[in-house]
Amino acid sequence: MPQRTVFFVSDQTGVTAETLGHSLLTQFDGFEFRPVTVPFVDSIDKIEQLAERIDAAVEESGLRPLVFTSLVDEKLRARLLACNALILDFFEAFLSPLEQELATKSSHALGSPHRMADVASYNLRIDSINYAMAADDGHSPQHYSQADVILTGVSRSGKTPTCLYLALQYGIFAANYPLAEEDLESGHLPDGLMGFKEKLYGLTISPERLRQIRLERRSLGRYASAQQVSFELRSAERLFKRYNIPYIDATHCSVEEIASTILNVTGIERRVRP
Amino acid sequence: MPQRTVFFVSDQTGVTAETLGHSLLTQFDGFEFRPVTVPFVDSIDKIEQLAERIDAAVEESGLRPLVFTSLVDEKLRARLLACNALILDFFEAFLSPLEQELATKSSHALGSPHRMADVASYNLRIDSINYAMAADDGHSPQHYSQADVILTGVSRSGKTPTCLYLALQYGIFAANYPLAEEDLESGHLPDGLMGFKEKLYGLTISPERLRQIRLERRSLGRYASAQQVSFELRSAERLFKRYNIPYIDATHCSVEEIASTILNVTGIERRVRP
Repeated sequence: MPQRTVFFVSDQTGVTAETLGHSLLTQFDGFEFRPVTVPFVDSIDKIEQLAERIDAAVEESGLRPLVFTSLVDEKLRARLLACNALILDFFEAFLSPLEQELATKSSHALGSPHRMADVASYNLRIDSINYAMAADDGHSPQHYSQADVILTGVSRSGKTPTCLYLALQYGIFAANYPLAEEDLESGHLPDGLMGFKEKLYGLTISPERLRQIRLERRSLGRYASAQQVSFELRSAERLFKRYNIPYIDATHCSVEEIASTILNVTGIERRVRP
Repeated sequence: MPQRTVFFVSDQTGVTAETLGHSLLTQFDGFEFRPVTVPFVDSIDKIEQLAERIDAAVEESGLRPLVFTSLVDEKLRARLLACNALILDFFEAFLSPLEQELATKSSHALGSPHRMADVASYNLRIDSINYAMAADDGHSPQHYSQADVILTGVSRSGKTPTCLYLALQYGIFAANYPLAEEDLESGHLPDGLMGFKEKLYGLTISPERLRQIRLERRSLGRYASAQQVSFELRSAERLFKRYNIPYIDATHCSVEEIASTILNVTGIERRVRP
């Protein structure tokens, strides 16, 4: 089956068009798409180059491409519409109902969906990133009083990426503490966490998935053995239950979903909006 | 002027609806919106709770809310449409043209825009995150051969968040090296970077913005002085030019834009898609 090319076109980074397109395409199983992001399309020259790439894609595969576009400029959009492709135009679909509702014309300026934030928000985001880096993997327990949340779980359960995502996306101060063998064997929370029980959030994962992740690292020996993985996960979940620590099974979750679930369950307020 | 409430509604994390809505709303200057994200709306109970919140918002402000929704389930969408709000329904707008083009019915399953990636991609993303953390702030120069890109610039020019974003979003291995006073004074690239010139990418920023960022940290003394900031930035830009290092002025750019520009200019291929 020939692959159909999907263009994500934007006068900015293309992240919006990608997000939009990606979540629609997941509704179509069994198709193979060839994704191409074309950011910063802000001149006639660039739209002409894109038009050539669209023509080339049609010629190559015999299928007309799908184009998700968040272009704002009317001339550029008009040129795109003349291409042999299915144009899914994000502004066309939503801008005019919004204009009507707000009884105003949109600025039709080049959008700045990721507009530079004010200095205070910018610094907050940086501070939360630095915090997540400093308090990764059980480091900096002396700064747990600053944490909004402290993730805990066994090695490779997804703590680090979740903490960084919480910082980058939401400005949340997230630390993480890996449960060590001695914690798991004793069945007790380590002393350093006892004073912060209400900030703890657990991550768990299925033994099969954890084993896969650890094996993929070519980890030999006990670390990725079925027995060790099961022991760690069973002990960790017992610990979460014993101390009433809310936890999430991350087996089928992306980092984005884990982060979003934590905010939703704990009620922690985001400090910045992306 | 009363604030209009904007709901971002999703059966998943809400990130898609937020991204979509946010970039449309930046087209309307002078309005104040009160953003509310409502993720994981996946039952009649939850949609009824949301309907109550919508009614409450109308009552409070006298304005009907804007609702950006990426709900997939038809029953839930129908209930939402009955609310007193402007419903901007992402699936309604684009799903049927896509179905027609692909000559197939969409699965209309709960979407998984952030579907858990395969184990190899997951590990790659984790590896690039670990790399960015280990090679932050001039650390681990012995691993520069692994880097896809090495960002450089003065302190607080945006290197760390950009590296982490490149890792989380694209699986790129990004190191960063802060230009120290001795590098700036000598006018020479430090020895450790000379072998990796083709991987370097510079960040610069306006003196005013950098000063603001540094001052906001309550940095006293020379670090945030106008003279120091200008000296550092002038010297850094001279260095970039002298060694033909491509660079970007990050003054008006978000982290997302810087990252996207770097990929676009260097042609570095993303290793994972979010």
